[in-house]
Amino acid sequence: MVQNIINPSLKNPQIFNLESFDLCRYLATAKARVEKALEASIKVKYPETIYESMRYSLMASGKRLRPILCLATCELFGGDDSMSMPTACAMEMVHTMSLIHDDLPAMDNDDYRRGKLTNHKVYGEDIAVLAGDALLAYAFEFIADNTQNVPSDRILRVVSRLGRAVAAEGLVGGQVVDLESEGKPDTTLETLNFIHRHKTAALLEASVVSGGILAGADTEDIKRLTIYAQNIGLAFQIIDDILDITSTSEELGKTAGKDIIAQKVTYPSLLGIPESQIQAQNLIDLAKSQVQCYGSPAIPLMRIADYIIARTY
Amino acid sequence: MVQNIINPSLKNPQIFNLESFDLCRYLATAKARVEKALEASIKVKYPETIYESMRYSLMASGKRLRPILCLATCELFGGDDSMSMPTACAMEMVHTMSLIHDDLPAMDNDDYRRGKLTNHKVYGEDIAVLAGDALLAYAFEFIADNTQNVPSDRILRVVSRLGRAVAAEGLVGGQVVDLESEGKPDTTLETLNFIHRHKTAALLEASVVSGGILAGADTEDIKRLTIYAQNIGLAFQIIDDILDITSTSEELGKTAGKDIIAQKVTYPSLLGIPESQIQAQNLIDLAKSQVQCYGSPAIPLMRIADYIIARTY
Repeated sequence: MVQNIINPSLKNPQIFNLESFDLCRYLATAKARVEKALEASIKVKYPETIYESMRYSLMASGKRLRPILCLATCELFGGDDSMSMPTACAMEMVHTMSLIHDDLPAMDNDDYRRGKLTNHKVYGEDIAVLAGDALLAYAFEFIADNTQNVPSDRILRVVSRLGRAVAAEGLVGGQVVDLESEGKPDTTLETLNFIHRHKTAALLEASVVSGGILAGADTEDIKRLTIYAQNIGLAFQIIDDILDITSTSEELGKTAGKDIIAQKVTYPSLLGIPESQIQAQNLIDLAKSQVQCYGSPAIPLMRIADYIIARTY
Repeated sequence: MVQNIINPSLKNPQIFNLESFDLCRYLATAKARVEKALEASIKVKYPETIYESMRYSLMASGKRLRPILCLATCELFGGDDSMSMPTACAMEMVHTMSLIHDDLPAMDNDDYRRGKLTNHKVYGEDIAVLAGDALLAYAFEFIADNTQNVPSDRILRVVSRLGRAVAAEGLVGGQVVDLESEGKPDTTLETLNFIHRHKTAALLEASVVSGGILAGADTEDIKRLTIYAQNIGLAFQIIDDILDITSTSEELGKTAGKDIIAQKVTYPSLLGIPESQIQAQNLIDLAKSQVQCYGSPAIPLMRIADYIIARTY
């Protein structure tokens, strides 16, 4: 049960009503704000190819879950979009970079992503590598140049968090273990959890935690946000693995059934679909329990956690 | 002539004597400090492959020109290594990333770099892409986490500068135009200058200017440093193009004669070697004239400019 008492660590919190809270509308509104900011973030100029390539993948329709989580967490602690939107956009830029590079022939060799041809299929491998590099570097520049109403030391903490979430201790490390595990049917649940926590959860964690840091969340809050994000991150990936089996390529906007073809060990392959669903639900419950203490202002984060397990693509 | 009066914008400047200044020793000492800091910057842990791959290219012997310029400029304005070394290391990480990705089969397809097999020849293309990504992201984290005795707003300005130097307005943009110009014998000097200013000079500029920012250089100083760096950057690349013709692969530690084979337009191909050398010398003179006003504390920057044109590899 969500309590209606407001945690003293929240400043000027927005009050939501659990019964009337409309998640679809909340997500749509936040997504529209993110799309607008992303649209304005990269202008095409000479040499046009690289800006067009960056925009091609960045503006391909996605759920924008990472930026929305960043905005929602900043809001929870009394912050607004002027503080969090540049970081929110940076999270999407970095996520897009990771998709472009993951899809390369030397990596997962994928032809479709977000319902469109992958970046290298349109612009060539060389430009795809460079578009990823440019998005990654620009993400940091964008945070440093555009964040408003936040003390510089907090912005630096966000820069550090984002760097760690991407580099070898974050998604790159997860991707490496993922590549090493391909075609190895004896991959353990422990290794699988390492992959998911790094490849998927690290950037979700950075998105959530950064929203908190920017708005001035304290050490105890950051601990709670970290546990919340790590758990929704792992649940997100378990659901992804289930959807890879149960959905069509059209529904996913990317190639379905890849894990089975690649003989990849996943939660469903190790535990079966029903048990995987139970585990994902447990993770979501654990995540929600971490932010319950904030009462009704945390309703968006609680409902986003529910959405992660209920989504169909 | 170097004046011995000390510019009032310098705080506690180190005094050098033009006659007795030993550039070889200065470069060797600075390089040793950089190597030590780079060595400590990345520890190998699980998953080992990615850390080993990052270290393989980062620790391959290079001139370490970018970090040394960062340290030297910070010193000129009264700063020390505690302020500049993390940024100096970050510049080398980013430079290494650009070399790893440039050498990929989808780009320049090179087998040798710094006298060793290229990263993808040893670790595979997938790991080489990821090692570059990890070095790029880690560079920003490293600056944010390790810079000492510098106000946060200055560190953020460095983060912004580094991002811009790498992304589409910097070396990625230069690399794109370079790729587009391959096999086009009608490439103009204007386009060639665009490539060099972005692919090479942008990161040298970020290295020099960041050293100044960290130590508190003012707007006028930053302007001078920018012109200094842009000019040594362009001269550096002209000399690179000359060496590609006049040196052996053994001397360079990378494949020589590549530009001719790729039918690439270069300064020597457009203007001939003697005229290219004159142009490089003019750029170096212009660079030196920008820092002359700082008197004897600027002797290292002046002599590094001379070194750029005198180097043989």
